[in-house]
Amino acid sequence: MAAAVRVSVSARALERFRDALGADGVVSDRDALGEFRDPYAYPSWEEHTASAMVMPRSVEQVQAVVRIAGECGVSLWTFSQGRNYGYGGPAPRVGGSVLVNLRGLDRILEINEELAYALVEPGVRFFDLYEAIGQAGYRLWPSIPDLGWGSIVGNTLDHGVGFTPLGDHPTRQCGMEVVLADGDVLRTGMGGVSGSRAWQTAKRGFGPSLDSLFMQSNFGIVTKMGVWLMPEPEHYMSCSVHVQNEDDLAPLIDITRGLLMERLIDNPPSIGSAFIVAGAMPGAPLRAHWWPDPGPVPSDVIRRIAMEMEIGWWNMRFALYGPRHIIEAKERIVRQAFAQIDGAQMRTVACAGDEVVSVADMNAQVQAGIPGMDLLRMLDWHNPENGGHVDFSPVLPMIGGEVIRVTKRLRDVADRHGFDHDPAFILTSRSLVQINQTYFDSHDEARQLAAFTVVREQIAAAAELGYSAYRSHVRFMDDVAEIYDWENHASRRFNDKLKDAIDPGGVLSPGKQGIWGTQGRARSTTTLTGGA
Amino acid sequence: MAAAVRVSVSARALERFRDALGADGVVSDRDALGEFRDPYAYPSWEEHTASAMVMPRSVEQVQAVVRIAGECGVSLWTFSQGRNYGYGGPAPRVGGSVLVNLRGLDRILEINEELAYALVEPGVRFFDLYEAIGQAGYRLWPSIPDLGWGSIVGNTLDHGVGFTPLGDHPTRQCGMEVVLADGDVLRTGMGGVSGSRAWQTAKRGFGPSLDSLFMQSNFGIVTKMGVWLMPEPEHYMSCSVHVQNEDDLAPLIDITRGLLMERLIDNPPSIGSAFIVAGAMPGAPLRAHWWPDPGPVPSDVIRRIAMEMEIGWWNMRFALYGPRHIIEAKERIVRQAFAQIDGAQMRTVACAGDEVVSVADMNAQVQAGIPGMDLLRMLDWHNPENGGHVDFSPVLPMIGGEVIRVTKRLRDVADRHGFDHDPAFILTSRSLVQINQTYFDSHDEARQLAAFTVVREQIAAAAELGYSAYRSHVRFMDDVAEIYDWENHASRRFNDKLKDAIDPGGVLSPGKQGIWGTQGRARSTTTLTGGA
Repeated sequence: MAAAVRVSVSARALERFRDALGADGVVSDRDALGEFRDPYAYPSWEEHTASAMVMPRSVEQVQAVVRIAGECGVSLWTFSQGRNYGYGGPAPRVGGSVLVNLRGLDRILEINEELAYALVEPGVRFFDLYEAIGQAGYRLWPSIPDLGWGSIVGNTLDHGVGFTPLGDHPTRQCGMEVVLADGDVLRTGMGGVSGSRAWQTAKRGFGPSLDSLFMQSNFGIVTKMGVWLMPEPEHYMSCSVHVQNEDDLAPLIDITRGLLMERLIDNPPSIGSAFIVAGAMPGAPLRAHWWPDPGPVPSDVIRRIAMEMEIGWWNMRFALYGPRHIIEAKERIVRQAFAQIDGAQMRTVACAGDEVVSVADMNAQVQAGIPGMDLLRMLDWHNPENGGHVDFSPVLPMIGGEVIRVTKRLRDVADRHGFDHDPAFILTSRSLVQINQTYFDSHDEARQLAAFTVVREQIAAAAELGYSAYRSHVRFMDDVAEIYDWENHASRRFNDKLKDAIDPGGVLSPGKQGIWGTQGRARSTTTLTGGA
Repeated sequence: MAAAVRVSVSARALERFRDALGADGVVSDRDALGEFRDPYAYPSWEEHTASAMVMPRSVEQVQAVVRIAGECGVSLWTFSQGRNYGYGGPAPRVGGSVLVNLRGLDRILEINEELAYALVEPGVRFFDLYEAIGQAGYRLWPSIPDLGWGSIVGNTLDHGVGFTPLGDHPTRQCGMEVVLADGDVLRTGMGGVSGSRAWQTAKRGFGPSLDSLFMQSNFGIVTKMGVWLMPEPEHYMSCSVHVQNEDDLAPLIDITRGLLMERLIDNPPSIGSAFIVAGAMPGAPLRAHWWPDPGPVPSDVIRRIAMEMEIGWWNMRFALYGPRHIIEAKERIVRQAFAQIDGAQMRTVACAGDEVVSVADMNAQVQAGIPGMDLLRMLDWHNPENGGHVDFSPVLPMIGGEVIRVTKRLRDVADRHGFDHDPAFILTSRSLVQINQTYFDSHDEARQLAAFTVVREQIAAAAELGYSAYRSHVRFMDDVAEIYDWENHASRRFNDKLKDAIDPGGVLSPGKQGIWGTQGRARSTTTLTGGA
């Protein structure tokens, strides 16, 4: 299996990048590049580090970058903001790659209030679009993840989830512009029609839809993307349900599945443990207060945290949007449904749609598209100085009993290595993403490597049950891709065939999501420099 | 431009197909093949006719077919049921192709009530799945188009639309199995994981999502597909709004856009003219009763038809699903919204979800997933003996004024050639498909060719305004693809590159959606046998 391949960039290539982008568009200083390592990597970490970084500021400059890379045999690794923390941030799969930092492509090209969409470049953050909507006075809500500093494009391309009714980000994406490995530019869907007036309103053109081909892949560099927004609702209610026992997770999930399918809950709910909810509360006592030992917090302490913080072992948030009396009717039904779980509590925060900015509640804000950074407190809760985490996130069918079974299996792995097991869940209609976060001291190499062992073993444990992650840390991309073994890895072989056709030189993000192309794969397996 | 290419199949290839499928799996008799022409083609039509047909009954037989075709240089043309009438039905783009008729792959492999999905083969019709759900006693509603005889898979692959809340069929698709040109088999999404338990519940796996690549393309033959179903709702209301004036279309669309975005209408509404609504009514007087002339029905007669049949110039249907008091609350809001249009009438049919089978109303049935064939009456209305039609269906942003502008432009074309212009509209959230149907006597060659001229001119007129069709008759696939001209036809060049990589021999449905691959394109433009 491909592991610690390393490449380098020639002085000649750097020279050509500087000619194309200007001297300030190219970074090769080792210290300056330090900021673009895995944000939680231990100090001596070398494996997934870049040898240089280019910062194009226009589509033409992106085209120039890929052409130069192709001519000089440079491996590029693209990121939009690089905030995919827990999965490696901007760190490249192949050490020594040249980072393509798209933060400079930061224009919001259009916001259309009537049709509720925006057209953005990859450097546009959730914060930026939210602010631009506000400044223009448009009554539109964007869908955002918990942390607002990420790129809208980057999040979508990695199959991100947000928390308005348009929370399935790949689904609310509409139209792309993509620079291909040969420097050609493509517009997907109706964007292929010159002067198209439907590009951001219709998700498909004539012929196959190509957008999803450029998500979680290395087939192109997305330079523009349409996103749908929702009109500000008349009224809004952010809700939470708190259940007291670990096994209450099963009925919580099963009841929610029914409510989602009947469209009585309007957005993707998410479930967090007592850890994550207590940890994200401003001013709350840190983990060490409850449990000073580095080993896993025992059940009775989790129960005590939940009780004293007045939350549940599991805590689910969701929201309702629309006319007030419809929201209230839904609330009554939902409340009744969750009352089937002994000891379950439901809390709500409600307001008129145009008053939501004044609601000082993290969940109410996120589910209304108001970006923040509150969840990051969670990291300090575990370790206020050098907190780091790495995530393993399998996708499971939304069946409570099955989720419990998988959860226990993955917790056993964390337990065995002496880590807290802190799963969170994002629920769509028929499946959920289970985010298993493993926390560590990012200055402690041994502990971090142990955390990586947890992830590797969790990947294998989930695979035995028939499940795969929906995204992955760069270090584990091949491990996850390997699980797709049906018909002699038909999936990998097909992706390699596409890669060979679209990027025969293997210039764009080699190894991303385990896609190398046939030549890249051959190189990657013959130039191992050590185990991952 | 590629036009009337014709190929032939060798006796040797037919022999090999018979060896693989048995003698009854291969048809080469000219009369028997007559049934698989364009269903509305005039009697002497030759252009898009097949030279033989194979009927595999298993995935392995499909694999054998593509392998033999590859080895013998045969052009295949695949259809599931071939009911895409108005766009050529099962007729191949390239005359002389061997049809791959998938009606024999007709198994419903799974219906999961808890997670509300089904896994079907391409020969499964909307009728079949509906019946199977009923026989099993599951409380699930499928999403269906107006005519129930089509293939669920085929409809989805051609970007079909249905009329429950899961009516956007490509979006409600989840997981595919595909036979590739080299006989390899691929499963998309989580299906790549052996023993996956999430294949039909999660729309994406790890890496790029490939499903949409196999829709409206010739990159593979889909042999299994997951579709999501909706749980039977507690209560149900089928609604219709009727407006009196031609220009009321604009406010009707604008108001509906707002209601859809606020999720006060639950499914994709569709709008039909007085023609189509009067025409589909059982026992209603035919067109000749109102207007005996073959030329376009004048405005005052349209108005008279609407008045006497107690419908509107435009008639929109939509539906509400859920708890009774929520439906009724929505109904009040929706009713108030449409009351802004002078003279608008709203009618409703409501019942408990489990009583819908007994509601004798075509629109109520279709929007509840009960398949029928009623809309086909429309054809008899125009011509009770040899009615035929050809459709041009551009996708427009959902802005009333813009839709009117395009509609008038397209009607001018129909008028000029002496045809009725009968547009219908299917509304999604930000765009709509405008289906311009041109009716003709299918035994009248001159009239049919004139109808094709209408389509060709409508394609050009819409392109001038920046719009393209969402699907097309085989005869116009190149014309529509040609409109995607941005960046020197980047879209066509990219599709050709994929075709070259995935199907280098050009075996699968050459020319479908204007995709030929570079070699196929060269052949297609050098072997013209006549203008289309």
